[in-house]
Amino acid sequence: MICHGLLRTLRLHAQTSTCKRAGFACQAVQRDSRYAALQRLDVDVFTAILGSQNVVQDTETLQSSNRDWMGKYVGQSQVILRPSSTQELSKVMAHCNDRKLAVVPQAGNTGLAGGSVPIFDEVILQTAQMNRIHSFDEVSGALQCQAGCILGELNEHLAAAGYVMPLDLGPKDKCQIGGNVSTNAGGLKLIRYGSLHGSVLGLEVVLANGTIIDTMTPLRKDNTGYDVKQLFIGAEGTLGIISGVSILCPPKPAAVNLMFLAVQDWSAALQTFVRAKRKLAEVLSAFEFLDSSALDLTLHQLPHIVNPLPDHQAPFYLLVETSGSNGDHDQSKLKDFLKEAKHDKLIQGGTVASDSAHIGEIWQLRENISVALNKAGKTYKYDMSLPVAEMYGLVEDVRQRLQKYPVRVVGYGHLGDSNVHLNVSTEEWDDDVLHDLEPYVYDWVADRKGSISAEHGLGQMKSQYIGYTKQPDTVDMMRDLKQLLDPNGILNPYKVLPEHVSFPSAVNDRLMASRSKSASY
Amino acid sequence: MICHGLLRTLRLHAQTSTCKRAGFACQAVQRDSRYAALQRLDVDVFTAILGSQNVVQDTETLQSSNRDWMGKYVGQSQVILRPSSTQELSKVMAHCNDRKLAVVPQAGNTGLAGGSVPIFDEVILQTAQMNRIHSFDEVSGALQCQAGCILGELNEHLAAAGYVMPLDLGPKDKCQIGGNVSTNAGGLKLIRYGSLHGSVLGLEVVLANGTIIDTMTPLRKDNTGYDVKQLFIGAEGTLGIISGVSILCPPKPAAVNLMFLAVQDWSAALQTFVRAKRKLAEVLSAFEFLDSSALDLTLHQLPHIVNPLPDHQAPFYLLVETSGSNGDHDQSKLKDFLKEAKHDKLIQGGTVASDSAHIGEIWQLRENISVALNKAGKTYKYDMSLPVAEMYGLVEDVRQRLQKYPVRVVGYGHLGDSNVHLNVSTEEWDDDVLHDLEPYVYDWVADRKGSISAEHGLGQMKSQYIGYTKQPDTVDMMRDLKQLLDPNGILNPYKVLPEHVSFPSAVNDRLMASRSKSASY
Repeated sequence: MICHGLLRTLRLHAQTSTCKRAGFACQAVQRDSRYAALQRLDVDVFTAILGSQNVVQDTETLQSSNRDWMGKYVGQSQVILRPSSTQELSKVMAHCNDRKLAVVPQAGNTGLAGGSVPIFDEVILQTAQMNRIHSFDEVSGALQCQAGCILGELNEHLAAAGYVMPLDLGPKDKCQIGGNVSTNAGGLKLIRYGSLHGSVLGLEVVLANGTIIDTMTPLRKDNTGYDVKQLFIGAEGTLGIISGVSILCPPKPAAVNLMFLAVQDWSAALQTFVRAKRKLAEVLSAFEFLDSSALDLTLHQLPHIVNPLPDHQAPFYLLVETSGSNGDHDQSKLKDFLKEAKHDKLIQGGTVASDSAHIGEIWQLRENISVALNKAGKTYKYDMSLPVAEMYGLVEDVRQRLQKYPVRVVGYGHLGDSNVHLNVSTEEWDDDVLHDLEPYVYDWVADRKGSISAEHGLGQMKSQYIGYTKQPDTVDMMRDLKQLLDPNGILNPYKVLPEHVSFPSAVNDRLMASRSKSASY
Repeated sequence: MICHGLLRTLRLHAQTSTCKRAGFACQAVQRDSRYAALQRLDVDVFTAILGSQNVVQDTETLQSSNRDWMGKYVGQSQVILRPSSTQELSKVMAHCNDRKLAVVPQAGNTGLAGGSVPIFDEVILQTAQMNRIHSFDEVSGALQCQAGCILGELNEHLAAAGYVMPLDLGPKDKCQIGGNVSTNAGGLKLIRYGSLHGSVLGLEVVLANGTIIDTMTPLRKDNTGYDVKQLFIGAEGTLGIISGVSILCPPKPAAVNLMFLAVQDWSAALQTFVRAKRKLAEVLSAFEFLDSSALDLTLHQLPHIVNPLPDHQAPFYLLVETSGSNGDHDQSKLKDFLKEAKHDKLIQGGTVASDSAHIGEIWQLRENISVALNKAGKTYKYDMSLPVAEMYGLVEDVRQRLQKYPVRVVGYGHLGDSNVHLNVSTEEWDDDVLHDLEPYVYDWVADRKGSISAEHGLGQMKSQYIGYTKQPDTVDMMRDLKQLLDPNGILNPYKVLPEHVSFPSAVNDRLMASRSKSASY
């Protein structure tokens, strides 16, 4: 097994038109001639399935749906489809597959790696109208809904029953649960509620040819054969389009506290984390960090954002949240934790928010760093998973490396999950900066066996660097899975699995040595 | 995609010799003539790879390794292989694949569905010698080890660093982590630490042809492409053999309390559960139940087991455990919970254990029900996931249905996870009893959209009933995955995916209607 047929096939079908990607180390991706161009007949078929109001071709809407929210990636699609049901979606896909029309699924379009916008003329398939909640079980906490439900709205729905969604992220008022699952979104509460691979109970997925794979269940346990739904979690819509989600939701905590702490160096930040794991333990629900550069930029760009510690200057700030069922117990744990941290001189200063307005104000700061960066100009964004001790070293190293440029290097992220967001903010895209960044940062991560995409996915931005995290045999297995489930390659093409995979030099050397020993494996 | 080629292929290769399965609705499985028979030459190759001491053919060892621990399933293997490293395992598999020798991976051989013993003459591949711990990170809690490490021994290793394994089950002193992952073991703490799909960080897997898929990482987040390791979690060794595991371990709780409560009916048990979720919330670490039949049988068969409530007779008993970082807080939550439950007359009586000896004594009772059943005679064992309100209805219904037989019907399980273990204890296997049980119990579960195997897996016992939980298209997708990863079908054959799939009548009718509409899909 693990054939290389698909790899070769993909290479044969390159055309000459190239994609429009602003400021990127774009490996001259070309439109694949395997795919048909949209014809009047296709629009007629879509209209018959969806009704004319759900087949959108007006210039303004096309323009907005062809762009990601950062304005970084711009596609050339000529049609947007808006199914309301799984059956409609299935019929649309069957037609696209027969006609070899490429398709890009688009949920909230809040991604950071260009995964949800077309590159060429792919049909845009929006899930926004698939937004019905099927059921919620107040005993088990199992929610079943269509994929297009908005994360924040699901949270509101659950609040009445005393539950919350098991994930939380900045764009919660726009992102959809189907997109969250497709990108295996991590976010602010992963440290508490774990990954979607654990909390998703079942999925309904429409494959490229329209086949509906239905594993929807409100039950927590099922060991009857392979857990096929897992393949679609984080596949960024390249293996199938998620149409329904069943997910386990935790009870809404009765008490929440949020600390905003200033620490003097990375070592103190780490020690504070270890202390929080011990002292806050089961009530710890977030452990985030930002550096002073992230704080300054956000306060500067977004004047409505409040500085939680106006009288403290420190290189690092931590957001440490507790969520529990008993406010007194949580307060007592929190005081114990703070007392120890102060005694050991880990923290320079801090504030504790216990009412929801104050808590919301502090989270606003953390959640708007990305928005502030977007306002400040152009941003080279990286999302790395690294051993926690070395994590901030990447930011420092890049800051040093780019000293000669008028750029601002910003670091923040999910310290508790070993996940750093490295952002390089410039006025305009600059090929020299980019050249000094890539593949340097990917090599840096590969050397430490980290992940070049902890939570944002590969999309179109990072697909060519998949080999910096995944082993060659694993990439080959992915290609085989793609070929099995989408033999025409119509689902979200040019993303996740690139035409050519680059590996870091150490892997390349090993690969050449082993492949010269045996022609096939 | 979703071809039916494999299905047809499998049907062509049936031979005449049938398997030996005691007391089972065995669909006359026959040895598949695709597989080669072991020859002297093969033994020589294995000896060259592993050394003669790791190629075992003595009668006594063969006899014991050919049987499962219950003595229910007996195979006819002629050789046991014991690799110590992934490289050795890879070489062995490459040879088996070239020669089309069927292989059954065997870890602790503690399964309940006959998944880890051969049916015919499959080579037994034992992982017990692959028992090295690679690393443990005391900051993140990530453990990396070989697959053959014993669960209980890993727990002991972690205790020194203040951590525990994220799963716990009865045979912890024998079962291996690789077997746990291969069967997606649930166990006693799933309600707290979630499923292995969430806590396994990475795997090393040897495919049928010897290819090593290495996704081992101590890091929690990685969104670079498809999460291929998930396919092997719960695949029962039919897609690859797990050789290494990276797993996230939670801190060892500072305080543990265990309540043993008597409740008067199922409704009170459910209300107690809802109350526990609210009042114990983040410190709730187990919510188990047993019926009086399970209690009586266990106390009768195993005189060393202590009755925690000798003065109370009740139809149901609950084990409710808390684990937390602060003993005083947990005790306070527990008292609040008990006060409310007593006030609302949910519980008839109970005892609270807070020291480890007393806690251990009560867990002994719960963990030994299965051992007691084995001692009592033969057991028809079922492991169902059902909506929690209807869960015990299955036990009552079966008890009623089997009234005419001299059998004991026992119910226990993981109430908090919607998982009931239905056990029918007889002196000897009885085809009439079996006939009244199957497919009746599977139909019962299918009617309520439950799972016919919540945590035990399908193995050889339940593979023919996969269609009672999984949809036809999902089963087809599984077959395609099997064909992709193990085209010669040598890995743990005759299990998980059966030659012929039965579907409940409602699914069959739908299937026939849709297939008559289109020849392929």
